[in-house]
Amino acid sequence: MTRDDARALDAADPLASFRDRFDLPEGVIYLDGNSLGALPHATPAAMADATRRQWGERLIRSWNEGWIDAPVRLGGKIAPLIGAAADEVIVGDSTSANLFKALVAALRIDPARGVVLSEAGNFPTDLHVAEGAVGCVPGASLRVVPRGEVEAALGPDIAVLMLTHVHYKTADRWDMARLTAAAHAAGAVAIWDLSHSVGAVPVDLAGAEADLAVGCSYKYLHGGPGAPAFLYVAKRWQDRLASPLSGWMGHAEPFAFADGYVPAPGMKRWLAGTPSVLGMAALEAGLDLWAEVDRDAAWAKSAALWRIMADAGAAAGLDCVTPADAAARGSHISFRHPDAHAIAQALIAEGVIGDFRAPDILRLGLTPLYLSHEDVWRGGELLRAIVADERWREARFQERLAVT
Amino acid sequence: MTRDDARALDAADPLASFRDRFDLPEGVIYLDGNSLGALPHATPAAMADATRRQWGERLIRSWNEGWIDAPVRLGGKIAPLIGAAADEVIVGDSTSANLFKALVAALRIDPARGVVLSEAGNFPTDLHVAEGAVGCVPGASLRVVPRGEVEAALGPDIAVLMLTHVHYKTADRWDMARLTAAAHAAGAVAIWDLSHSVGAVPVDLAGAEADLAVGCSYKYLHGGPGAPAFLYVAKRWQDRLASPLSGWMGHAEPFAFADGYVPAPGMKRWLAGTPSVLGMAALEAGLDLWAEVDRDAAWAKSAALWRIMADAGAAAGLDCVTPADAAARGSHISFRHPDAHAIAQALIAEGVIGDFRAPDILRLGLTPLYLSHEDVWRGGELLRAIVADERWREARFQERLAVT
Repeated sequence: MTRDDARALDAADPLASFRDRFDLPEGVIYLDGNSLGALPHATPAAMADATRRQWGERLIRSWNEGWIDAPVRLGGKIAPLIGAAADEVIVGDSTSANLFKALVAALRIDPARGVVLSEAGNFPTDLHVAEGAVGCVPGASLRVVPRGEVEAALGPDIAVLMLTHVHYKTADRWDMARLTAAAHAAGAVAIWDLSHSVGAVPVDLAGAEADLAVGCSYKYLHGGPGAPAFLYVAKRWQDRLASPLSGWMGHAEPFAFADGYVPAPGMKRWLAGTPSVLGMAALEAGLDLWAEVDRDAAWAKSAALWRIMADAGAAAGLDCVTPADAAARGSHISFRHPDAHAIAQALIAEGVIGDFRAPDILRLGLTPLYLSHEDVWRGGELLRAIVADERWREARFQERLAVT
Repeated sequence: MTRDDARALDAADPLASFRDRFDLPEGVIYLDGNSLGALPHATPAAMADATRRQWGERLIRSWNEGWIDAPVRLGGKIAPLIGAAADEVIVGDSTSANLFKALVAALRIDPARGVVLSEAGNFPTDLHVAEGAVGCVPGASLRVVPRGEVEAALGPDIAVLMLTHVHYKTADRWDMARLTAAAHAAGAVAIWDLSHSVGAVPVDLAGAEADLAVGCSYKYLHGGPGAPAFLYVAKRWQDRLASPLSGWMGHAEPFAFADGYVPAPGMKRWLAGTPSVLGMAALEAGLDLWAEVDRDAAWAKSAALWRIMADAGAAAGLDCVTPADAAARGSHISFRHPDAHAIAQALIAEGVIGDFRAPDILRLGLTPLYLSHEDVWRGGELLRAIVADERWREARFQERLAVT
């Protein structure tokens, strides 16, 4: 691929105009939208409205003017991105907290089954939260097996199959329908973490007959740093499961101020404390942008961007750990290199922001809404140059940061 | 008290200048700062910086430029307001989630004790969360007794005494040192909910030898709607307790991405998922304002404002349910009236915003930083007038709102 080839793809890109809907710094090629999505142009004004008008002027009255329904309203806006019905998704708390709720609730379905099965090397918080969740259910335990052994490990003691749909490091994508069916065949429920999937690849929870799912909104959904997460509960489970984090916002009548907890019908029972209104204001701006996007075009463009970077990595002689088959991966690409951290720092010094995942992964996000084909081509050329001239060996690129 | 008396108090008020540090709408007397604190003038700029510069321009790099330390940094700014050391407080999640963590951790101290003791009519989420927490610890249960029977109910089966320092409805304030000592004498630990105390009355967790505490930051701390909450763990407990909500941000090495959970030393182990960065940005502006406040002057002014409203209520013939003794109450005042909801609506129609707490409480917050003595005097005069002419009987004041 040449620069002109990339420009020709940009000229024909139906999503090209979305680049102007984001505020990105001059001179930066941002290949880290899979970690923190870029700032939508509309978001600062949405935040100013939430702060100055809703909070400052309307004060407590804003609870009756949109705030109280925000978790359900935003859930409804995420639903079409994950193949769910609007009343199957709610926004609030963190992905970790929502996963905890989902796991404990699912572990209580059948006391005869107590094992949460997951994959070694899953995103750490999923395994950490599962450790905490099984500690809250008598007889429950966590079993972690290598990726290739997951399906065979589904047996009569498995209560929950907990998987991350797209792997945070390798971008490997599970076949959600197949694994969910296998879990069901074994008598287990499936909980999917969609953090690296939502807004990145097609997700069809209904088609897969998924049970529960969680996901984060600060990556591809552009919710901002630490944006509130989401939880999906299939309708057939909604009246049968309840949250162990039983706070007042999940009560059937939160403003009756009764001593006893009665879970709300539908998805509201999964709320706990007062939700982050300012965080939701930022997220809603990101979701409203997604409502305008042709998602099939987005997935297709992600795949095209991925191919450009994969070719550059191959030309540089890098070891790509992400599957070449678009249906078997997410929208980021990862290369394994013993000096991946220094290479990432050398890229950043040239304005190409990707990230490093310990111990040896260079991870580059190929998000379709604000990256042009030429951006990715230029990032790829720079990567080739940095690997070729070994400039990452310079002392300034060897410093380790607190968050890497 | 006359208007001139109130003005004379304002003229001598050492905190009078803080009024200009808040953005309040024209014509509103805001007596609901105990529910949602007013907007500090500095907050919109802080939010714009967090959004446009930190997120939009610095992008992922901001994690190394202040975000990762924010939960600990903000905890350190709350510490002096509650009589804690800077390394005993952390900010994140909701009050409900933090209370859940504290309860489950405390219930695991001694398997021979399993009862969480609390007060009937405590703030509902505290009781709801306790219901959820005892469900996560084998043999644990929740015992709720009338306020006057709490101390006598401390016995050998009590694991945790869970109390809200200042009652959300009546403003009754527990003697924290006395109740903590009683809990300790019975072999229990004490968990305090400071949501209606922090920034409202003096709190001395160290002096009371308190064990754990939680609190919210969107009331007197001006953190904004749904602002992240805080958790206090006394130093002597920090290495002995761990969070059941074991997420990656509480891991000793979150960016080592190890499968197994190892809790961080100190307060960081109480973090779970990625914290709400935008929520913390707003809260930090509120905390920086509090750093300038003479807290003794603030408590003294709250008490003076309370007296003005108490006198107005008495003149109106209202039944005040808040203790007259300043040491035995918070900084809000509550009147019981069968038509409290309609009275609150009639006050709002005249620009005096207080609130209603079901079934029959009119609750008015008397916050010292942005209310003048004359404001409260005018609010009191209006209350007298509304009660005297019974205008709350008008149909327009009878409508019930979703959030009341």
